[in-house]
Formats: sequence, C-alpha cells, structure tokens
Amino acid sequence: MNHIEGVLERIDADIDNSTDRLFDLLKIKSISTDPAFKEECRKAAEWLARELSEIGIKSSVRDTTGHPMVVGHSEADASKAGPHVLFYGHYDVQPVDPLELWETDPFEPKIVTKPDGSKIIVARGSADDKGQLLTFVEAARAWIAETGSLPLNVSVIFEGEEESGSPSLDAFLDANSKELSCDLALICDTGMWNEETPAITIMMRGLMGEQIDITASDRDLHSGHFGGAAANPIHILSSILAGLHDKTGKVTLPDFYDGVSEVPETVTAMWDGLGFTTEGFLGPVGLDVPAGENDRTALQQIWSRPTLEINGVWGGYTGAGFKTVIPSKASAKVSCRLVGDQDPEKIRSSLRKYVEDNLPADCSVEFHEHGSSASTHVDYTNPAVDHARNALTEEWGKEAALIGAGGSIPIVGDFKNKLSMDTLLIGFGLEDDQIHSPNEKYNFSSFHKGIRSWARILDALAKA
Amino acid sequence: MNHIEGVLERIDADIDNSTDRLFDLLKIKSISTDPAFKEECRKAAEWLARELSEIGIKSSVRDTTGHPMVVGHSEADASKAGPHVLFYGHYDVQPVDPLELWETDPFEPKIVTKPDGSKIIVARGSADDKGQLLTFVEAARAWIAETGSLPLNVSVIFEGEEESGSPSLDAFLDANSKELSCDLALICDTGMWNEETPAITIMMRGLMGEQIDITASDRDLHSGHFGGAAANPIHILSSILAGLHDKTGKVTLPDFYDGVSEVPETVTAMWDGLGFTTEGFLGPVGLDVPAGENDRTALQQIWSRPTLEINGVWGGYTGAGFKTVIPSKASAKVSCRLVGDQDPEKIRSSLRKYVEDNLPADCSVEFHEHGSSASTHVDYTNPAVDHARNALTEEWGKEAALIGAGGSIPIVGDFKNKLSMDTLLIGFGLEDDQIHSPNEKYNFSSFHKGIRSWARILDALAKA
Repeated sequence: MNHIEGVLERIDADIDNSTDRLFDLLKIKSISTDPAFKEECRKAAEWLARELSEIGIKSSVRDTTGHPMVVGHSEADASKAGPHVLFYGHYDVQPVDPLELWETDPFEPKIVTKPDGSKIIVARGSADDKGQLLTFVEAARAWIAETGSLPLNVSVIFEGEEESGSPSLDAFLDANSKELSCDLALICDTGMWNEETPAITIMMRGLMGEQIDITASDRDLHSGHFGGAAANPIHILSSILAGLHDKTGKVTLPDFYDGVSEVPETVTAMWDGLGFTTEGFLGPVGLDVPAGENDRTALQQIWSRPTLEINGVWGGYTGAGFKTVIPSKASAKVSCRLVGDQDPEKIRSSLRKYVEDNLPADCSVEFHEHGSSASTHVDYTNPAVDHARNALTEEWGKEAALIGAGGSIPIVGDFKNKLSMDTLLIGFGLEDDQIHSPNEKYNFSSFHKGIRSWARILDALAKA
Repeated sequence: MNHIEGVLERIDADIDNSTDRLFDLLKIKSISTDPAFKEECRKAAEWLARELSEIGIKSSVRDTTGHPMVVGHSEADASKAGPHVLFYGHYDVQPVDPLELWETDPFEPKIVTKPDGSKIIVARGSADDKGQLLTFVEAARAWIAETGSLPLNVSVIFEGEEESGSPSLDAFLDANSKELSCDLALICDTGMWNEETPAITIMMRGLMGEQIDITASDRDLHSGHFGGAAANPIHILSSILAGLHDKTGKVTLPDFYDGVSEVPETVTAMWDGLGFTTEGFLGPVGLDVPAGENDRTALQQIWSRPTLEINGVWGGYTGAGFKTVIPSKASAKVSCRLVGDQDPEKIRSSLRKYVEDNLPADCSVEFHEHGSSASTHVDYTNPAVDHARNALTEEWGKEAALIGAGGSIPIVGDFKNKLSMDTLLIGFGLEDDQIHSPNEKYNFSSFHKGIRSWARILDALAKA
C-alpha cells in the first residue's frame, strides 16, 4: 500500500499550522553560548519534548552538565522493514549581535514576501537549525496523522550546545550508547546546492577553536607616560595574528597541513559540473577577490582546504571618542576549519607554541579551549545515499548533488566512532540564509518542500 | 610686607575644607569623551565657576559647540607688579572602564592610608586633572582670605574637552584672544620627578589620533561556509597594524621621522643626573623589557622620541563562548606621540595612505580623525622658570628638576601661537597615579604641598 501521496497532501493542508509551530520555537531565545539564556535553552528543549510526545514520539528532556538534550523514540515495531533511523538536530542558536543590523526583532519571527513573490521566514535560528529540524518533525507528524505510525522505527536526539562546541555531547553519547545506537543517522543542518537543486553533503570540515589572551603590563597605562617604552599587547597580538598566514594565503603554523589530502578526481569532476563561480559566491556578500590559498579555487578553499580564521579581536578602548591608553590585555578568538586527517589537538598545540614563541619575555599568555572536531566524510557508497538521493530528486525535479561543505557538524564523527552509524546529511539551507549573521532567514519553500522531502525519504528508506 | 607665611599657615589650617571641596568636584562624572555624560560635564563647569566667583575670581560658564569653558578674572589692579598670569586646567576626566578593576567607586572619592602612613586620594580625576587644578584654586583662595587680594593679576580658563582632543578650544581661543592674552600661562597637569623632587616640564610630546574602520564583506559571514574564500577584516587589520613597526621598534610610515631632532646635550646631561632606571620605571607596572626603538634608552623613548601606539582594537565576536563568524568590519584606534617639528597632519596622511595601499581591492576603509597637536617646548630661558624653580625648591627642600614629558598638553602650543604667551608647566602628579587607569589616585601630599607650592610661586612671580 502506498501512503506517500496522502502524507504529502496532508503536509500541504497543514502547512500553516506547521509554520505556527515553527514560530513558537523561534520565539524562544535559546542562545547557548551566553549563560544569560540558560533558562531559554531549557524552555526550547521542553517545547520539543512536548511536541514530539504529542505526535507519538515519546520524548523527554535529559539533563547534562550544560544545556539539556531531548531524546525520543517512536513505538518500537520489529515488523518494520527499513533501517531504524536516529534523527539529530540542535535547538540552540547563535548570539544575535550586532543587534542594530537586524531589520526585525531576531526573536519575533516574520514572514516576508520578496519582490519575486517568494516568501522567507526571518528570525534567529530560522535556518540554523530550528527551521531545518522541524522539517523532519513535521514530516513525522504527517506520517503518523495519515497512517497511524511512521514507516520505519525512528529515534530523535536534539542538542542544545551545537553553537558552543557541544561540550556535553561526548559524555552523553557514551552514557547512552545502547539507547542511541540505530542503523542510520539523519541530520538536517546543511544546505542545498542552490535554490532549485537539493543536495546530500558527503564531506565536512572539522573545527578547532581557541581564545588567546595576552597580558603585557599589569594595569592599563597612559600612552603619553609609557608610550614607546612599555610593551603594547595589541601590537604583540597584531604581529602574532598577522604572522599566521604567508603571502600566498597558506597557514604558517608548523605541521598545519599534515593529514591534508587531495580530493579524489571522481568527486572534483562532479564539483566541476556544478556551475560554481567565484563571482556568484562572493558577489552577493560584497566581495570579489578569493582571500585564501592563491593556488586553489574558491570552491576548494571552502570545501576541501583547511583554514585559520580570527573570529574576534578586542583590547584597549573601543568606545566612542578616544582614550590614549596602552592596555594591559588584548585578546583574540581563533578557529581552524580542518580537512582530511588533520588532528585538531596537534594544531591547537602548534598554535599555542607559536604564540608563546613570539611573545616578549615580560608578557604572558593564557589560552582557552573552545572545542574541536576532526573533519568528517560520509561513506557515499552506502545504499541509503542513493535512496535518499532519488527521493530528493523526485521532490525537487532536479537531480540531487553530492557536495562538500565548509562548516562542521562534529556529531557525524561521533555517530561513526561511538555508535557505529553512517549519517545522511540532508538540509535545505541556502548560501544567502545569513546564518550566524543579522537577518537570518529560511526560505518558506525550504521549509515546506523540506517537510515533503523528509516524508519521501522516510518512505524510500522504509522500502529499501 | 611679606604675607607668604600667613598664607601658608592658612592653607594648613584649611586643608580639610580644601579636601572636602575636591571631593565635591570629584563626585561629578565629567567624562567628556562619552556623550552620555554631557550634563555632568556642565555640572562640573558650573561648580568651578561658582567656587571661583565666591573667592573673588569672577567667573562664568561659557558655551562652546562641545562642553563649556569656565573663564574668570581677579579684580584688575594695574598697580600689581608681576606678570598677569592665566591659569589653565581641565575639569573633564577619562572614561572609567574596565570598571571591574576599580577597588572603589571611581566617583566616590576616598582617602586611603597606605602602610607607610601616607595618604592618597582615590577617584577618577583625582590626579588628572581635578586634584591638580584645585591646588591653584585653593592657593588663590588662601591668598585672598589672608591678604584680601591676589599678589598679581590672575585669569583662569578651565576646559572640559582635554581628554577628547579639545575640539572646541581653537575656536574659543580665537574668539576670545583679547580677553585671554596675558603675560604668562600656568598649567598644573604634569608630574613631579619623584615623590620628593618637584619638577618643571620643559618639553612635551604632541599627539595625533586616528580611528581606522575596515570593511570586507557587507555582512557577517559563517566561517564554515565562507572561511578560506572570503576576506577577513581582522586578518587585514592585524597585518596592517603589525606592519607599522619594524623589528628594531622603529615606525615604518614613510617620512614619519621628518622633523625629529636630537635633544641638546645640556638637557640630556641634566636627565642623566636624574637617576632614572628602566627597572625603576617599568618594574612597578609588571614589565622589564623596553619595547620601543632598540637604540634608545627608555627615558629617551618616553620623553624625546615619537611613538605610534594602538590604543584600541575590536572586531567580530568578543563575548563569552565562541562564534564562528567572519565579521564584516574590524577597527582600531591609533595614536602617535610626536616630538620636535613632526607635522601631525602629514603623519595622519602618511598613515592613511599606508592603510589604503595595504587594503585588498574588494575591501574599504573609513578614517575618523581624533585630534592632533604638535610637540611643544617651553622656553626655559624665560626668567619666570627660575623664579618658579626657586619657589618649588623652597617648598620641597629639593632642587626642582627641568624634565621632559611623554604626554601632550596641546594648549601650550596654542598659548604660544595664538596668545603669544610662554607657559610654566608645574604639576604634582606621580608615575604611580594610574591616570587613565583604574584606581587613579593623587597623593595627599601632592594636593597639600601643591597648594603651598602655588602660593609660593604666585609670591615669587609677583616679586620678580
């Protein structure tokens, strides 16, 4: 019996209610990186556990040393044919600063109609990842409403610390490995190739984050009294940061490129066929000169090459007007995107040694670790990739692309290493979603057709 | 008739009331650089005009396009022998951040007794410049109370924008040049050589301030999606800032050292006799390696050599936790201390050109000027220098030193150029006063003996 047409009709009929539910979730200010929003994170977890339980995926909020997890399971049915899938998403969101650049309140979601008549959902988390994770939940809702059950066994885990380096995840997976080990993991936290072309992501960069705090004098100094003689930590930090890249855009840290391998030609050939252009990629954000390694294409730079970026820098007087101070301290937040077999902790050590080696004798440095994850590769010979690809192609009317991604979803490695599961990375984000930036949005079509896509993928996997 | 002993006795008897008056002024939050404190600046001006008028120096608050000036004059008496003096001070103070490093409220002045029994006055502005300017006002008060008048004709000007580059000063001096042109200017905004040795400052560095705002992409970007391909303005800014000095500590800007001349041997010989040590200077602030030009002594570095310092830097995410952002903008506040005949505006142009020349083609920069002043030299052959030096030597029991100073008091140049007056720079600050830093203090002995010093200097100038 083929239920999928009924499920899809139900999704279309219920889309306004689905949107209302998304708005409810988007209104919760679940910024995980800022302790001020701790209670809001819990509120988001409780909202999800309630929604899942109501549709028949019995779920609970599970405490960790940080923000809680939500874990749920559909009623187990051994007669179901397909794989038991574990769906992962994260309910936490990025901070919203600079707030003054938002055109609407980041936590008051709005539907905006664009000049071409298409609609977007504007709010922090609309694309990363609340809108995306809800595409799966709403697909499950439609399946159960239409047929009384899901076509295969489904478990769910939602995390609340993805945007702050997932500090509690490892311990939680270890402690609950039996409960969470399924046959295949599904994640909706990636993008489409473009607005018309769905994609499965098969290659993602890892991440290593580090904060560097340099101290020179033990107090702020007057630049008139001490200027010239006293070490200025902003000068020192600037020189250290400037020395991290050479003139060709390569990272200078010793052994940084250990473990970086070239992408196989079968994959690069597929990429060459995607019609990617540097102008098309950088133009929409106001740039046109690729800034990284100058012997690589921009697509290689973002998908298959490692990076070192300074994500924040601060020191001295930064307010209105002027203050002729030589500050005591200056700081930077640095992160590396990693590929292949690069070892995040080796790179962290190399960075720390480089900073220490370049510090004047009377200055000191403190380091603060901000998480790490190795690069991950999906085994694209897993037959589930083909089934999902077909389902996506059917929904979107364009063949789904197998792509790389510059961002990191560390849990893919954990699912493989701790729970022995492959992961399907399927998402409906777009380059212009402005995730992590002001005015984050999610295309309404990503939301609607994303729900329909998951309904089809569940169907395809169940029949496999 | 010799009044000075009576005046000094009156100062001693009245010192508690003098301190109470200082506390009243210190409680006013007159931070000129931050628009939020506009009304507090006016309050400080009104307080000063009232106090001066009460003791017989008729004063008024005079509006400018920024914070107001206070101008006052003692009753003119053509029979008075000495020079007509104009005393200058500034009632505005530096911002107080980082507030968490203050041990007491910066605007709740406290007397603290140190382990050796000496007392200090702790508050923002205690040394820079409210405590200092009040030494003159209290000396004038004692003279008038004791003798019915001042020993010479006195005018006063108090500014409220010294800490923010004195934007209204030039126009005000031009508009009121007739009223303000006297025979000699007196300023109390400098330091002693050390706690026992008074000093007259004969050489001060100039200042040029500039803010650099670099823009790369037109929005904040996700470092996973764009990292490697998109220009990062913090990298660009760091490289630009790092390139401003070479390995010997010299500033690299073209023509930066034009107009820098060597100090005459007569002066350096005097300096060599002062017993200055690098350890004694840098040790108390937790440093021991002179950071500037490596072919100069630390004393030369701070008194007679130009500098370029980064006073503030900011960009990207600087809050708690981590945000993997490539920001759109990064900024720095830069200032140069200038000596000899260095031209501040030529150096500003050189800095701007250097930044523009080092900017990637798809990035842009905005500059914001934060004031400038050339270096100033006091003519130490003016006989007033000797009279004042003798008066100081008498009060402190140690010969007053003729010193250089790293900081800038731009008005000295204006007094010379616009009003044809030489200036005597006499102050009672100390290296450990932590001006512009948390826990600013002024030694109680600086305040008390400072008042006595001015009483003696007025006497000495009147008799000259």
